[in-house]
Amino acid sequence: MKIEAKLAEMGYELPPPGAYLSSQTGPPVPVVVRNNIVYVSGHSARGIDGKGAAPKGAVPSKVSPDDAREAAKGAALTILTQIKEEIGDLDRISKWLYVAGMVASDPGFDRTSYVMSGFSEFIIELFGPEIGNHARAAAGHSTLAGNSCVIVAAQVEIDGH
Amino acid sequence: MKIEAKLAEMGYELPPPGAYLSSQTGPPVPVVVRNNIVYVSGHSARGIDGKGAAPKGAVPSKVSPDDAREAAKGAALTILTQIKEEIGDLDRISKWLYVAGMVASDPGFDRTSYVMSGFSEFIIELFGPEIGNHARAAAGHSTLAGNSCVIVAAQVEIDGH
Amino acid sequence: MKIEAKLAEMGYELPPPGAYLSSQTGPPVPVVVRNNIVYVSGHSARGIDGKGAAPKGAVPSKVSPDDAREAAKGAALTILTQIKEEIGDLDRISKWLYVAGMVASDPGFDRTSYVMSGFSEFIIELFGPEIGNHARAAAGHSTLAGNSCVIVAAQVEIDGH
Repeated sequence: MKIEAKLAEMGYELPPPGAYLSSQTGPPVPVVVRNNIVYVSGHSARGIDGKGAAPKGAVPSKVSPDDAREAAKGAALTILTQIKEEIGDLDRISKWLYVAGMVASDPGFDRTSYVMSGFSEFIIELFGPEIGNHARAAAGHSTLAGNSCVIVAAQVEIDGH
Repeated sequence: MKIEAKLAEMGYELPPPGAYLSSQTGPPVPVVVRNNIVYVSGHSARGIDGKGAAPKGAVPSKVSPDDAREAAKGAALTILTQIKEEIGDLDRISKWLYVAGMVASDPGFDRTSYVMSGFSEFIIELFGPEIGNHARAAAGHSTLAGNSCVIVAAQVEIDGH
Repeated sequence: MKIEAKLAEMGYELPPPGAYLSSQTGPPVPVVVRNNIVYVSGHSARGIDGKGAAPKGAVPSKVSPDDAREAAKGAALTILTQIKEEIGDLDRISKWLYVAGMVASDPGFDRTSYVMSGFSEFIIELFGPEIGNHARAAAGHSTLAGNSCVIVAAQVEIDGH
């Protein structure tokens, strides 16, 4: 439980499971694990109280870049909860491979990378750069599921145990 | 041919091959198969008559959420045709891994998950939840190839035969 | 160095490394290599002089489809530089698997495939169709990192040496 201890040391706790807001109305699963790869569905931030905590709408007209950056970090926490539900122990994560960062954005907004770095810096601090660093896209979208300001999907490698 | 029998039982038939509308003007291939993974290009719905059947434009201003949901199901049929062309038998599909759902959407539209569940529910009914369930994103886009209302890309695992 | 010789023969040269414009403000790495798969972050075009060379903003209101198509080809060059930095020799690329093409687009723009084929045709000519052809999506986005007109992410297979 090294990762969870580090998480606590950083001042965070995992939100409760069931946090899979972006498909409340849909059937897919939060994560699929196959051949040591975890395919992570798009997730948004979620409050510790079990409610969606992130502000809604496009950056920057409805949500500030800094609030969206915080929401990107919140999406990381949601994802960690859902991966843990499936694989049991976050220490099994051996490499963050690819992160698809989606930011609801007004046309011309040029700081989607800044927003998504709220996610990336958090994951890299938590797992260390060797495991945590990842390839990434940070694209602007006209809107996202549930009008979320940030949704993140990912591919993560786990060990074979 | 269990999957095709189930498809007929559900009242559907595969559109003819060559349905790869989203890149009519481009060179890539509909699917790449490598190391038991099928990488599926973005596909839109297509009519049985060989013509693009889905309505064009953004949801909800140009296309209703229900029509887009139907178009998402249609994209599933297009994808099944193109996978079958490449691997010969849809029964070889051993797991739907990840589905990138793209919905042309007006800013603030909050039901992209509802639209994409037209795809997901169809695939899960056809393949059963163990094989059919998948990780998914359902993002809103300012526009899509060919002005399609819904385009779906995917990664699918097949057996090794 | 067959690929670099072919590149020169086609009249192109690789831009210098460090071309990873789309995350200038963020921490992720340009590429992650794991289990013979190169996960390539979103990249935009970049000039030979080391500056971002592609025009900024949405197609077609700010950037013409043809200029965006050229920017898609430029993104291919940026990606090749960054892959070479990591794996040493572009001849190690054994298959282009999946290309996520992202085009900053005004609503209703229907030629994102045309734009992205600037990338695809270049890669297919350079590597030949057997290695170079790929699955692809070509989606329109309200905006992209750094207000780029085109950003491309990819998954590429390399040999095991």
